Amino acid sequence: ARSALSFSRMRVFVINTGTELLLGDVINTHLAFIARAIFPLGLRVDRQVAIPDGASIHQSLAEAFGASDILFVTGGLGPTTDDVTREATAELLARPLRRDAAIAGVITAHLERNRFAMTDRILRQADVPEGAVVLPNENGTAPGLYLQAADQRGRKTPHLFLLPGPPRELHPMFTESVVPILRGIVPSEHATESRIFSIACVGESVVEAAVGEELLAMPELELGYCAHAGAVDVRILGSAESVNQAERIITEAFGKAIYTSAGETLEAVVIRLLSERNQTVATAESCTGGYLAHRLTNVAGASAAFLAAEITYANDAKTRELGVSEQCIQENGAVSEIVARAMAESVRLKTGASYALATTGLAGPGGGSDAKPVGTVFVALASPSDPTKVQQFRFLSDRQTFKHLTTQRALEMLRQQLIAS
Amino acid sequence: ARSALSFSRMRVFVINTGTELLLGDVINTHLAFIARAIFPLGLRVDRQVAIPDGASIHQSLAEAFGASDILFVTGGLGPTTDDVTREATAELLARPLRRDAAIAGVITAHLERNRFAMTDRILRQADVPEGAVVLPNENGTAPGLYLQAADQRGRKTPHLFLLPGPPRELHPMFTESVVPILRGIVPSEHATESRIFSIACVGESVVEAAVGEELLAMPELELGYCAHAGAVDVRILGSAESVNQAERIITEAFGKAIYTSAGETLEAVVIRLLSERNQTVATAESCTGGYLAHRLTNVAGASAAFLAAEITYANDAKTRELGVSEQCIQENGAVSEIVARAMAESVRLKTGASYALATTGLAGPGGGSDAKPVGTVFVALASPSDPTKVQQFRFLSDRQTFKHLTTQRALEMLRQQLIAS
Repeated sequence: ARSALSFSRMRVFVINTGTELLLGDVINTHLAFIARAIFPLGLRVDRQVAIPDGASIHQSLAEAFGASDILFVTGGLGPTTDDVTREATAELLARPLRRDAAIAGVITAHLERNRFAMTDRILRQADVPEGAVVLPNENGTAPGLYLQAADQRGRKTPHLFLLPGPPRELHPMFTESVVPILRGIVPSEHATESRIFSIACVGESVVEAAVGEELLAMPELELGYCAHAGAVDVRILGSAESVNQAERIITEAFGKAIYTSAGETLEAVVIRLLSERNQTVATAESCTGGYLAHRLTNVAGASAAFLAAEITYANDAKTRELGVSEQCIQENGAVSEIVARAMAESVRLKTGASYALATTGLAGPGGGSDAKPVGTVFVALASPSDPTKVQQFRFLSDRQTFKHLTTQRALEMLRQQLIAS
Repeated sequence: ARSALSFSRMRVFVINTGTELLLGDVINTHLAFIARAIFPLGLRVDRQVAIPDGASIHQSLAEAFGASDILFVTGGLGPTTDDVTREATAELLARPLRRDAAIAGVITAHLERNRFAMTDRILRQADVPEGAVVLPNENGTAPGLYLQAADQRGRKTPHLFLLPGPPRELHPMFTESVVPILRGIVPSEHATESRIFSIACVGESVVEAAVGEELLAMPELELGYCAHAGAVDVRILGSAESVNQAERIITEAFGKAIYTSAGETLEAVVIRLLSERNQTVATAESCTGGYLAHRLTNVAGASAAFLAAEITYANDAKTRELGVSEQCIQENGAVSEIVARAMAESVRLKTGASYALATTGLAGPGGGSDAKPVGTVFVALASPSDPTKVQQFRFLSDRQTFKHLTTQRALEMLRQQLIAS
């Protein structure tokens, strides 16, 4: 449960069409995407429905028309027989479909480039209900459509957005075409600012205990928490004045623990901080098995700051590649502070990186002992001037969450070192 | 669009309650999970609705009662004031809530263990509508509930399942308690078998062209395709006889290209094949940046077969760690067949692994040339007896999809080598 939010009173409905969603072939990410995109406008989704391709769109549109102020429909704009969103809308609103010559031209050119044959079914994607605004599709053939009208009984209908189903078509269209239209629709008394503060390696309850009461007491401020594995986002929305005041409260409580208020990932922040300083990083990974290097190399431009990684999963690789002696491993165990320290220092020296991160731990399910139970992990950070730091944690979770929590700690250790130096 | 499916005629509805879903804090994975879990029973979801916590459950339940034969409701069983699914159901069905002593005992013990104070609100989780079947919750306090009854107007209601919201509570409960009940509900003429064939590195259209027509022509067979990045699942459902016949058709068309019909991941298949042969693998990665090692080490028991990885992102790491000469890189480029080959052979020798995989490519967005455009990637496989194989690909996609498609090719090359040798 969360604090009651009193967002804009405009009722927002989402209809997702697509048999693949109801068969479980595809996870529906549209709702979360749209909800996050409209949050800064002071809007929230009141109801979302997923229905199969085909005729059921008629009933769902009719239901939503009476109950919503803004209605987003995804899918059903394509060329196949069960793509009928455009036609169902035109019928319900008694608006004739007219073929748009410009869209038809774009589709024809696209097909010729890819040497596909044109059919009338494909050209249907150029049909536009009279009076609709065309939303360009940079990544596909079917454009989006926006319209508001009266239905056949003369009732005013919601602001209706017909949008493509594939996320890579929907996302840029939403950001570039839908959001600007929404800005004109949302009443100006709801003009708001929003900010999202991301804090690594603390729990939602800690954040709530520190700032929740004070923020909830503020008038004209909406508050939401979003807990991820190893991070919490605090989202605030309200007037410019209240958002600024809330920012002061959150910054005072968490300060440098906030790794971004600009939507960056933790790994992107680390790569940026390193690049700004002309510094570099390397990793030596046992239990994380390459996931730390994977996260760092997911950042565009990572090559400016990330040099190399040694994934020493087997013990003899720790000895061969990182010079951790067999005796050291035998006496202390591969999961130990001394081995984590040696791994970090060794990979830093051999790669010439400014900083090095190392991980060694027991993801489980097997391999634990009383002294080193399953979930134990050591994270080490070797730095150019400061002594090497080693932290011990215990994460009881599935294998991938274990890896994620470990890399969150590693990245956060490096980030803290970078902003302190 | 997909072929029309004529699944069981029982109408299945899903209601997901949770304000976090409508705010986009959490992606709704419940629909996909439930759809996949009921597919083998010949059931499909006809409609799914997401609504906020609180009072809207009343209207949604009432709507779904008249229109569905089986109704799954997730969320709203917890202890907070806006968790009202249990109470709304009891009211709608005019069934008194009775406190279940056994559940209350489990909750009390759980709280004492964790030193939380007991409140009446928490104990509400032990309330059970008269006549409901309690579904044990191994991973939380609120049990699930199953009931079928007449509503206040005497109409027969759907088979109603009230289930917890957190996936780690829902998933085991669904598999262990809900599926067995469903088996008793689904009419026996729908008794079906299902099978899922996973094929790597081919497109959905290729699979459809090869077997689609023949499978669609079969009576009593349901067919679905599910395309992932670098893989396609072909799902079939029907009588034992028709499923066996379809299996023959699919196997004849794709044979060894099918990497699993048992739901294994490609990386799990590779680790299993290696372990069965007492063989091992190491990787040398440039453009995949550790993602290949990450995927292999996501498999429980990976340490039996995965030894180590060299993530040589910077060119001098390729020289230092893998002995690829500066001259070789200068003359051929780091993204070249000869460098990929050298990386694989070198990491195989230094780690003593049976096999080694190497990747080098240009994920972009920057760095392309006419000869080596962005998206170019070389994947190499070094083997104990066969000559090293190198394949060239071009993947035009975002950074993470590029990494995924590259590792799919690498894992599939190794899998093909293992089943051929």
